[in-house]
Amino acid sequence: MSRFAIGVDLGGTNLRVAAINENGGLFDQVNLLTEVEKGREDVVDRLSSGILQLVERWKNVYQLAGIGVGIPGIIRMKEGVLVASPNLPGWENFNIRAQIARRLNSPFYLENDANAAALGEKWIGSGKNCDHLCFLTMGTGIGGGLILNGRIWHGVAGMAAELGHVTIYPDGRPCKCGSQGCLEAYAAASAVVIAAQEFLKAGTASPALREAAASGKPLTSALIHQLARQGDASSIAVFQQVGKALGIAIANFTNIFDIDVFVLGGGAVDAWDAFEKSMFEEVPKRSYVFRNDPRRILKSHLGNQAGIFGAAYLAFQNLAP
Amino acid sequence: MSRFAIGVDLGGTNLRVAAINENGGLFDQVNLLTEVEKGREDVVDRLSSGILQLVERWKNVYQLAGIGVGIPGIIRMKEGVLVASPNLPGWENFNIRAQIARRLNSPFYLENDANAAALGEKWIGSGKNCDHLCFLTMGTGIGGGLILNGRIWHGVAGMAAELGHVTIYPDGRPCKCGSQGCLEAYAAASAVVIAAQEFLKAGTASPALREAAASGKPLTSALIHQLARQGDASSIAVFQQVGKALGIAIANFTNIFDIDVFVLGGGAVDAWDAFEKSMFEEVPKRSYVFRNDPRRILKSHLGNQAGIFGAAYLAFQNLAP
Repeated sequence: MSRFAIGVDLGGTNLRVAAINENGGLFDQVNLLTEVEKGREDVVDRLSSGILQLVERWKNVYQLAGIGVGIPGIIRMKEGVLVASPNLPGWENFNIRAQIARRLNSPFYLENDANAAALGEKWIGSGKNCDHLCFLTMGTGIGGGLILNGRIWHGVAGMAAELGHVTIYPDGRPCKCGSQGCLEAYAAASAVVIAAQEFLKAGTASPALREAAASGKPLTSALIHQLARQGDASSIAVFQQVGKALGIAIANFTNIFDIDVFVLGGGAVDAWDAFEKSMFEEVPKRSYVFRNDPRRILKSHLGNQAGIFGAAYLAFQNLAP
Repeated sequence: MSRFAIGVDLGGTNLRVAAINENGGLFDQVNLLTEVEKGREDVVDRLSSGILQLVERWKNVYQLAGIGVGIPGIIRMKEGVLVASPNLPGWENFNIRAQIARRLNSPFYLENDANAAALGEKWIGSGKNCDHLCFLTMGTGIGGGLILNGRIWHGVAGMAAELGHVTIYPDGRPCKCGSQGCLEAYAAASAVVIAAQEFLKAGTASPALREAAASGKPLTSALIHQLARQGDASSIAVFQQVGKALGIAIANFTNIFDIDVFVLGGGAVDAWDAFEKSMFEEVPKRSYVFRNDPRRILKSHLGNQAGIFGAAYLAFQNLAP
């Protein structure tokens, strides 16, 4: 009887539960809305029901290998407590592991969503066959995941790989984390908008950017990316900032870890063409490890499904001999 | 029959070989000069003779567990080749492992000296009983060593933990590595002198620093530290720069690794009292992991003997069940 695992990806907007086999084949998926406003108990109810629904549906066809749940935010791994989660307001110090366990009545793996996505990319994505991988997910914020020796690196308290909050510019923009000059403040989708607004405020924005801002349409990173592709100088400069900040971060990670492959995921990676040049210029300049031995920097292969695959793989990985 | 190991620390000036027992007791040591100017073959001759001398002297009293050799520079671990070594000019692309092996006729562990020192501190130093440790050695340059899960982290090609070359200030001072704004350019002993010279050049130096510079005595980090202790404003500001740069780096490493303990070694740590305040202020500001769960930042316990203990421990660690 072949095996399957359940992978869950809980996001600020979407809650997805999937049944996945050992070869990385996803054969059933339940897509729900998170609806945070209904309260955390309610969200955990739906999450657990989604899992139980898929388990019931398939447990007589395949053998259940296990369940993995990826959630956004910093988790104290020993206790299973969410320390902080920008996407789940009001969930601070919530013992999510205990809450899910109470409903499932069976063991499961709890994991940070970016860590899970990193593991997914290592399993069947851009980092396939790599033992050491660094994953950055570029959305509204920037999350990170580290795979060392084929496994997620958690650190002492499970709070490792907060890669969006390494300092790039010590005197730079304020960051939601309370620090300033963080990678997130320079390379997240929100940073793209802020950088464009800085040009507008300073009066140095190009005509096309000024026009877009005046049009009444909300200034989004997607719109600024579109302007950059049309040759708008300010928008191009905005993404050069993004690429430079990413390049500095990746160079630092290379000097620190000497790692195989970097994988960039999340919605903001759609603007790859606009930031790749400055990113690839910056890394060798900043890292003589990289100059001696260039490493791969790749786009995510699994996109927004990376986390769900990684969550499922937690179960398979821990069963492996 | 109890066991012993040989630990070697090859530096730019001193070449030290020691016999150490399993409890970390150093019971015999040979101190030689490196004399790089005599050529690399000659240095390897003396290094190997030192080892053989101690082995001969003790092999009938205790059982030899193994030999560990720490050398400065970046080593490609698979090949045993020195890629670059600022302290050993002319040794680039030298296959030091093959050269030592030819002379010893017995297996040994080759290791980067800062990695060896990190392991020494983990064994019987400031990081005793810690599984995850980050070591910074602050001398003329800054070296680094990472212990993860109790073992040295080498990365893909053995070039990991080049912690002195993470970028702190992207547009900062040039660094010998070809980049700019590296930690080394802000926190090494050489950076202390450069920072003082910047004050002098800008005409903003305090009277005591100007006087010291005009006295004809060479401006060293030790002298600037002495001035700082005497209350000289410019010298105090110099070490505040050092502390801030260290604080940013340690905060970043905490956000990345979520590690137990940071150990600072090397000669420049003598100025601990002058930089600790700004360092300890900066870390929690930059790392919410640290704010949530403060980690220890400690002075090296083993001083310049850390590397020799770590080199010996390589042999014991690899024998352990």
